[in-house]
Amino acid sequence: MKVDGKEMRPIWFDRATETVQVIDQRFLPHQLVIEDLKTVDDVIRAIKEMYVRGAPLIGATGALGVYVSLVQKNNRGADDNYLQAECDRLKNARPTAMNLFWGVDRVRDATLKETDHDARVKAALAEALQVVEEEAVNCEKIGRHGLAVIEEISRKKDGRPVNILTHCNAGWLACVEYGTATAPIYTAFDNHIAVHVWVDETRPLNQGSRLTAWELGKHGIPHTVITDNAGGHLMQRGMVDLVIVGTDRTTRAGDVANKIGTYLKALAARDNNIPFYVALPSSTFDWDITDGLKDIPIEERNPDEIRYVQGLSNGKVQTVLVPPEMSPAANPAFDVTPARLVTGFITERGICSATEADIMALFPEKVID
Amino acid sequence: MKVDGKEMRPIWFDRATETVQVIDQRFLPHQLVIEDLKTVDDVIRAIKEMYVRGAPLIGATGALGVYVSLVQKNNRGADDNYLQAECDRLKNARPTAMNLFWGVDRVRDATLKETDHDARVKAALAEALQVVEEEAVNCEKIGRHGLAVIEEISRKKDGRPVNILTHCNAGWLACVEYGTATAPIYTAFDNHIAVHVWVDETRPLNQGSRLTAWELGKHGIPHTVITDNAGGHLMQRGMVDLVIVGTDRTTRAGDVANKIGTYLKALAARDNNIPFYVALPSSTFDWDITDGLKDIPIEERNPDEIRYVQGLSNGKVQTVLVPPEMSPAANPAFDVTPARLVTGFITERGICSATEADIMALFPEKVID
Repeated sequence: MKVDGKEMRPIWFDRATETVQVIDQRFLPHQLVIEDLKTVDDVIRAIKEMYVRGAPLIGATGALGVYVSLVQKNNRGADDNYLQAECDRLKNARPTAMNLFWGVDRVRDATLKETDHDARVKAALAEALQVVEEEAVNCEKIGRHGLAVIEEISRKKDGRPVNILTHCNAGWLACVEYGTATAPIYTAFDNHIAVHVWVDETRPLNQGSRLTAWELGKHGIPHTVITDNAGGHLMQRGMVDLVIVGTDRTTRAGDVANKIGTYLKALAARDNNIPFYVALPSSTFDWDITDGLKDIPIEERNPDEIRYVQGLSNGKVQTVLVPPEMSPAANPAFDVTPARLVTGFITERGICSATEADIMALFPEKVID
Repeated sequence: MKVDGKEMRPIWFDRATETVQVIDQRFLPHQLVIEDLKTVDDVIRAIKEMYVRGAPLIGATGALGVYVSLVQKNNRGADDNYLQAECDRLKNARPTAMNLFWGVDRVRDATLKETDHDARVKAALAEALQVVEEEAVNCEKIGRHGLAVIEEISRKKDGRPVNILTHCNAGWLACVEYGTATAPIYTAFDNHIAVHVWVDETRPLNQGSRLTAWELGKHGIPHTVITDNAGGHLMQRGMVDLVIVGTDRTTRAGDVANKIGTYLKALAARDNNIPFYVALPSSTFDWDITDGLKDIPIEERNPDEIRYVQGLSNGKVQTVLVPPEMSPAANPAFDVTPARLVTGFITERGICSATEADIMALFPEKVID
């Protein structure tokens, strides 16, 4: 996507220096910082500390992390045990996002087909870059399928702006291109359909107000930042036509783990008869589980992410302490929205309802005999 | 209530200087700033800019504001027209809180019973202080009635801590003593019932993390600050036994206007079969209306309250800008929770369900013939 006229992705492989590079998203929107990921520890830190975040991007970063583990070991000590141990370390960087396990395992499997170290390095890089490209292509397809949903509402409103609420950042910064939740929005906008986006600020890390607002603004899409508290009120007043969110892991039965607070928006959408869609590449499905509440581990992150808020002050990125120094905080990072509250999934293969039968109809190769 | 061992209220009349004084709550929890309110403009600024906030406290401040309007006019120019105009200005300071209109009108009516200026000043002060004291007494009664709800849950849990979620600050800082939503909590704690409070931080102004956490901490009550996004997740996991919130205006049919985001918590409580109580003195009821969504005006506040976050940095209270400079924001301050989602009201007269019939049974003098 374009940033001030320049094509940019949140992760890329720089061929000149043979280095994996990422945007350090912690400093957006106020500073655009680029980081080199030269070791597996760099990659793990980038995932854990959320230089990179968003399920598809975490998957892409993990995939390139397998490549990094091999080039880091230039003394040929990269045997199968080493590779597996590094893959396990990468997969443990964050517990909820499905794409991380999927991306790492896929590159590991491609790597293990080779025996020679140099061939393995080459295979790992090729497969990881393939993962990155596929995510971009999948997001573009999600955009095309989701466009139909927005078009239909636009027709019903006689072309007046379609008001879309989104939570967190499931934009291109969370993916590679287009985003998941934002892909239909970018596609609609580029097709001259009037849209306006309500951007949940998404506490505690403000991925909505920091990242989604930045992305949309750079692309010229009308948007308004709101608190996470405001969505229900706007829905009651007829000011939201559609909700689209991303997901970090979705069960084969359609339960959706996504950024904390998503469940509250799904409840409000249901209470006000507003369609609630989840956009995802199939790499986000966890085909092995059905019960999201029981089977998806919810990451508990550092309470300081709630206590300290980062922003711009006197031209510098600074943090301020909000609650009393002595008050503890708890910081669950995700919640699970039950399938019963989801209107539909927008995937790279098309749209389906949030039932196992409909999901399986779209992904028949995942049917368990 | 006690602050570091010293009895304190959020508003008081200093007899030595004959001045109305308030805690300027904008700087809590990091600085305890006291302000004199010497003119009606001072009072309006304190209400508008939220030096004082919370429906009962806004009512008490408005009541004392009528007294201030009279002493300010020491040249005997305070005729009935002047008084009414100042009362109207006070009532326009904020549009949603019922108690403001109620407090101002009550002191105005008491004042108009006198004709002599000095008698009016005396009457205004006496009635305003009566309003303040009654709010304190009412909150104490709310605490005693609400205690029964917490006791019953405590018994069912065999004395294990009762987990209570609250939104915004409906504590003593929002009232005069005890608070509304917090009154049952303080009363339970003082009666040696184990409680733990989930404190919604309450964006955008963080009244939960700044004020409720400070109050509870000063009183020694176990509490944990959470994002506004987290409540649904905690309820799904059985970690919330009870929700208690305050209200800024409640219709005679039981629709509840309260801090933005309350509606989302009510939806989650209903979805998880968790009791959702609203605690209020009867001064918060608007006896003239039934339909909250239609009839309660929702204040739209300055978007900068969302864009800039205030906290402590290097020992100083500072603000930081979170979203991109160019992104607009919208800031509705309240939402309306429909009566159907409310388990019950905890009032100074006892507890009733959220139906017009039950509310009228408790306040029969308000029955419309």
